[in-house]
Amino acid sequence: MNQDYIKPDKWCIIEEGFDQENVKSSESIFSIGNGAMGQRANFEETYTGDTFQGSYIAGVYYPDKTRVGWWKNGYPEYFAKVLNAPNWIGIKIYINEVEFDLATSKKVSNFRRELNMKEGVYTRSFQAVASNNVEIEVVVKRFLSIDIDTVGAISYTVKVLKTDATLVFEPYLDSGITNEDSNWDDKFWNTTNVSTTDNRAFIEAHTMKTEFKTCTFMQASLEYNGNQISGVPYEKTDSFVSLRFEQNLKADESVTLTKFGGYTVARNHPNQELVQVANNSLDEVSALGFDQLLQKQKDAWAAIWSMSDIVIEGDVKAQQGIRFNIFQLNQTYLGTDSRLNIGPKGFTGEKYGGSTYWDTEAYCIPFYMATKDDKVARKLLKYRYNHLEKAIENAKKLGFSNGAALYPMVTMNGEECHNEWEITFEEIHRNGAIAFAIHNYFRYTGDYSYIPEMGLEVLIGISRFWHQRVNLSKDKNKYVMLGVTGPNEYENNVNNNWYTNYLAKWCINYTLTQLDKVKNGYSDDYHRIIGKTKLTDRECDKWRKVANKMYFPYSKEHGVFLQQDGFLDKDLVRVDDLPKTERPINQKWSWDRILRSPYIKQADVLQGFYFFEEDFSVEDLEKHFDFYEPFTVHESSLSPCVHSIQAAKLGRMEQAYNFYLRTSRLDLDDYNKEVEEGLHITSMAGTWMSIVEGFGGMRVINDKLSFKPQIPNQWKAYSFKVNFRDRIIKVSVTAQNTTFQLIGTEEVSIRVNGKKVALIPNELITV
Amino acid sequence: MNQDYIKPDKWCIIEEGFDQENVKSSESIFSIGNGAMGQRANFEETYTGDTFQGSYIAGVYYPDKTRVGWWKNGYPEYFAKVLNAPNWIGIKIYINEVEFDLATSKKVSNFRRELNMKEGVYTRSFQAVASNNVEIEVVVKRFLSIDIDTVGAISYTVKVLKTDATLVFEPYLDSGITNEDSNWDDKFWNTTNVSTTDNRAFIEAHTMKTEFKTCTFMQASLEYNGNQISGVPYEKTDSFVSLRFEQNLKADESVTLTKFGGYTVARNHPNQELVQVANNSLDEVSALGFDQLLQKQKDAWAAIWSMSDIVIEGDVKAQQGIRFNIFQLNQTYLGTDSRLNIGPKGFTGEKYGGSTYWDTEAYCIPFYMATKDDKVARKLLKYRYNHLEKAIENAKKLGFSNGAALYPMVTMNGEECHNEWEITFEEIHRNGAIAFAIHNYFRYTGDYSYIPEMGLEVLIGISRFWHQRVNLSKDKNKYVMLGVTGPNEYENNVNNNWYTNYLAKWCINYTLTQLDKVKNGYSDDYHRIIGKTKLTDRECDKWRKVANKMYFPYSKEHGVFLQQDGFLDKDLVRVDDLPKTERPINQKWSWDRILRSPYIKQADVLQGFYFFEEDFSVEDLEKHFDFYEPFTVHESSLSPCVHSIQAAKLGRMEQAYNFYLRTSRLDLDDYNKEVEEGLHITSMAGTWMSIVEGFGGMRVINDKLSFKPQIPNQWKAYSFKVNFRDRIIKVSVTAQNTTFQLIGTEEVSIRVNGKKVALIPNELITV
Repeated sequence: MNQDYIKPDKWCIIEEGFDQENVKSSESIFSIGNGAMGQRANFEETYTGDTFQGSYIAGVYYPDKTRVGWWKNGYPEYFAKVLNAPNWIGIKIYINEVEFDLATSKKVSNFRRELNMKEGVYTRSFQAVASNNVEIEVVVKRFLSIDIDTVGAISYTVKVLKTDATLVFEPYLDSGITNEDSNWDDKFWNTTNVSTTDNRAFIEAHTMKTEFKTCTFMQASLEYNGNQISGVPYEKTDSFVSLRFEQNLKADESVTLTKFGGYTVARNHPNQELVQVANNSLDEVSALGFDQLLQKQKDAWAAIWSMSDIVIEGDVKAQQGIRFNIFQLNQTYLGTDSRLNIGPKGFTGEKYGGSTYWDTEAYCIPFYMATKDDKVARKLLKYRYNHLEKAIENAKKLGFSNGAALYPMVTMNGEECHNEWEITFEEIHRNGAIAFAIHNYFRYTGDYSYIPEMGLEVLIGISRFWHQRVNLSKDKNKYVMLGVTGPNEYENNVNNNWYTNYLAKWCINYTLTQLDKVKNGYSDDYHRIIGKTKLTDRECDKWRKVANKMYFPYSKEHGVFLQQDGFLDKDLVRVDDLPKTERPINQKWSWDRILRSPYIKQADVLQGFYFFEEDFSVEDLEKHFDFYEPFTVHESSLSPCVHSIQAAKLGRMEQAYNFYLRTSRLDLDDYNKEVEEGLHITSMAGTWMSIVEGFGGMRVINDKLSFKPQIPNQWKAYSFKVNFRDRIIKVSVTAQNTTFQLIGTEEVSIRVNGKKVALIPNELITV
Repeated sequence: MNQDYIKPDKWCIIEEGFDQENVKSSESIFSIGNGAMGQRANFEETYTGDTFQGSYIAGVYYPDKTRVGWWKNGYPEYFAKVLNAPNWIGIKIYINEVEFDLATSKKVSNFRRELNMKEGVYTRSFQAVASNNVEIEVVVKRFLSIDIDTVGAISYTVKVLKTDATLVFEPYLDSGITNEDSNWDDKFWNTTNVSTTDNRAFIEAHTMKTEFKTCTFMQASLEYNGNQISGVPYEKTDSFVSLRFEQNLKADESVTLTKFGGYTVARNHPNQELVQVANNSLDEVSALGFDQLLQKQKDAWAAIWSMSDIVIEGDVKAQQGIRFNIFQLNQTYLGTDSRLNIGPKGFTGEKYGGSTYWDTEAYCIPFYMATKDDKVARKLLKYRYNHLEKAIENAKKLGFSNGAALYPMVTMNGEECHNEWEITFEEIHRNGAIAFAIHNYFRYTGDYSYIPEMGLEVLIGISRFWHQRVNLSKDKNKYVMLGVTGPNEYENNVNNNWYTNYLAKWCINYTLTQLDKVKNGYSDDYHRIIGKTKLTDRECDKWRKVANKMYFPYSKEHGVFLQQDGFLDKDLVRVDDLPKTERPINQKWSWDRILRSPYIKQADVLQGFYFFEEDFSVEDLEKHFDFYEPFTVHESSLSPCVHSIQAAKLGRMEQAYNFYLRTSRLDLDDYNKEVEEGLHITSMAGTWMSIVEGFGGMRVINDKLSFKPQIPNQWKAYSFKVNFRDRIIKVSVTAQNTTFQLIGTEEVSIRVNGKKVALIPNELITV
């Protein structure tokens, strides 16, 4: 399971040695991004071996026509897909007129990739005997600027060893690209203009159907012995443009091509100015030069790390894991644009289409709240508010009325773009996660204003949905919810999933409470909202009735809530008693066998215990954890983190640590044997939670931050910072004690292990 | 819902008037077949209007690569598809060098289609003003010979009205055809040779992947004023060949092209002899000539009708309906080849892929047993015996072991070719229908030999499957069956579908009984089977335990078995209380809404009451009928017939009659608005059952045929014949009495309304 080819290091991800088998996996792991764009770690030069090419622009997608074996009423006609964007990183290299290619080289040695997470720069270096026997040494540095987020930079140095040679560089742009997962082999991009100057080139292209206008651009320069060597415009076709630089080198001389490139997009600039803005960006970065731009990059990442770093002492693999997770989250989403969101694969692959799942609300928001200022989390909430009308339309398509809202399972622009009936139509608990995030946002930030301004309307739409989605069972004289899929997707179309029923009840009660609060404190907003939604007291009474008479499956014998009706009919063999050869069951078993088994893909009942822990005692948690965890196979990337937090809460640190390792190194160690498809970005926020909420025991209780710090045996110390209501608190934990340091000007009191502790600005308090 | 453009007639299906809107529907309704091949009623001449071209050869299919939105483990890689075969009916017509086409004609009048079901011949006639203003009158007759089943015949007569004209006929063969439902736009046919003689042509082609070798052939001749006009080989490409005949006509003269054509296939002849066999067939039919071949066709259909006709007096629509059903069943399958089966669309369309569903066992076998000799039904049973190894492989793929067999949901060659998890993996009751058919075959024919020779092995495989598919619920201390889909496909992945559980228990008990019988009466077979299957007494004991402790969901309150666990939690609004605008729900509602509703697509619990009626009292039936029928939407073609039979049993003749009309005229009146896709062949056997078993009340009880005749108010009389153990009994029912006539030499006693009645050969007995 553990590929084990990534070298442990505190700050860097390192691969040593060239193995064609690992290229696609490394392309994922060494991906870089700056929130606005990103790429897989594809080689700049031509590579004819097995590779998965991927460049992505935030918010640019394609509505691929749905293709299913059997159509079910209600399926969306289109599936919005993360789109492979024009390639700007490409540089063809010719040595004595023969194209250089690692796949055909006679020997490759000292191959090394290093992703320096501290500085946000990716370096690749190697020596190779090319197919024509010329020996070269190559060092390539690449980064995507955080400061000027339209631009990335590449420095490509080639040294000729032992012999003279003529080097040709052909940096290019290419918009003739496709998606691996296209349904109908459609062309996704339409190129409208290709242009060059002496050292720059531009491709204007828009996506088919969605008409996202983009300009992909580049500038290149060659430096040889301190001199700039000028290039010439070279190839130019409908969807391809290149420049050409040539230089004769003597043995052991080197030459460096510097390439700046990137995208300007019509989301941020008027369409007709895209080339001009690209030119401006290039002017700006070329005035700085590669080195100064890189320095700014280091500064920008230093600023990010200063707030979000988690330091672990005594366990380099754990340290590398958490930093990799934090690094990737920041590469994917920096919180600068409420039209964007956190795709499950970020900028590292195509899979899953769509950019927004319930992962954002359930897993990502806590990370962004604590490591950025609260505007970032608010932007993520606003994203859903902006999609409310479409969520109402979506519910309408499924037969709901009166402004009931069902947020999509997967979306780009608010429209549903998923098409498995058991998920699209039935995994409706996602609606509850969106409501929960509103609660969580206010609880953590103390910023109530979002609720009267936007959140309450979202809550009303969601409560209306739950009210219509249940029905009264005459048999039980309770409201039941039939035909749902819970977070555990290894059960489909079940009745009375406890988690979903609990969430529905909670949503209704929470909405009713907020209605009262807004009515009393924000009268103008209240009247605006009531006017808009036509909500009546009578309707609220109906909701209340549903919440009060909700049915929850329960086993007296076991003293636990049941995941769903009929759970106890299953053949309850624990995961540990399954032969190892049968796992992972999602690869070894047919789907029906998985469904009728008791095995749980990710926290389901326990997800409810995570969200609503204050409703249950620790004894309750223990009983449910002991009942469900033994049946849990953790075959979702979102599973280990919640279980790690709960194991920590139960004082089971060894188990918590093992879950932590699994979540933090999921991609680095390729637990699920699929890292070549891309990274699991959203679950990385869960890794952060498993340290801060799990080991650190951080909670917000009655407007106060609270900690119950523990430390795994394997660690000497760990520390993290959180931004709580504009106060930055650094927490450092060892086996002996915990130190708190408040950065700021105002005192704040927190609770540690249940006791009040006053923090004084810039003083170390040890507990 | 009722298209109402088919004219009522006792023996013919008639369309009058040309409406381009109806062309695709009529192409389905006027389809012809002879068990070995068939075609939609496409026009022979070129038609540029909207059309769905379809020619089919029995047993020739293509394994189309599966294409689904989301792959589930266990899906078959290929989906065997009914294949559109090379076209041999085509005849291009040129009038004064302008191609004739009904779609571009200036006027079409007296257009008439007539499918004469008594004689098995399809006639189309019309007058038209061609695009070049020449007026013509056309009469086309077409039939597929029952006697020489490789061949069909077309007589195409054109009369020129009012003016002289030059007529050109280009009869052709075309193997450059495609399937409308191809997944990947693959080419399905590879043409290897195209050849012509003066009046014959041949295209040798084989299917890709499956390599079914075929020869499509034709012979044409033109008759003018009693003289044969010779033609010449004309066009010839990779996949197309034509002959050409030209004749100048004076006003009001006519000319007739006679075309014989068809297929020889490697399933029946050595590959290298296909052209020779085709030539032999053509020699044979041209020696006979069109008229004599047609006379043989009439004789053949007279023989079929003499046994299978049902005569209804006083209700021409009902009469037309039942004859259409019987005619289509005989066009689809004549019982001559145990490698063939009864496809749900026969030779009338592509939809559903595959040729064999549980429809064959549950619906078709009773029709074939009673209207043919018992060898035909035995062939259908043998078909499944031949597929036993593949059913065992299929079960293995889903994780079953030890020779457990799961027959596919849909198949061509024994391999599963369906890919919806909730059907493919979970609609496993199909396995039980195969066992039930073995019981039904013996019960009706009295031929036990099938069981020791073949059936017992099938039963063992099926019982092994059920034994492994259930699990012991500790909670219930009963065996439960989780995650299934019953016959009511508007419920997916439910627990303890009563019908499936009941069937499983019955299968095990029936298998154990047959094991004993074979052990005691067929010792050699018994030892062969035990040696082959390694069945032990211990395994049988385990089966018995499962059968004895099977769980059946039951409601004390309602006194009924529940369709599945949790059925009573539903919002139990009866179909009659649904707004008409919401129906059919499969077109108006999203899939999740259908699933959580109580609505039933086709008999489910009631299917069990149909199969196993002797296990339940009439009061039980009534209670269950009254509980479930009000929730039944009958949106499956297989639904009304079972309900018609049960309503008749309960003496509710008005309701039974309405169900009968719905089943018998489903396609003629296009109830489901989809007849253009093809006809519902297998449900047509249900129509036959609703008269014979429903109104006639025919059963086999303790080796004796039994009747409880009733008659709908709308009818004066009806009569049918059944072949019961080589005795042919004609039953004629009026409101006053029922007359029985035994055709044969040996006496037989039957029961009528519970009383014994002795039938004497060739005497009319009136009860």
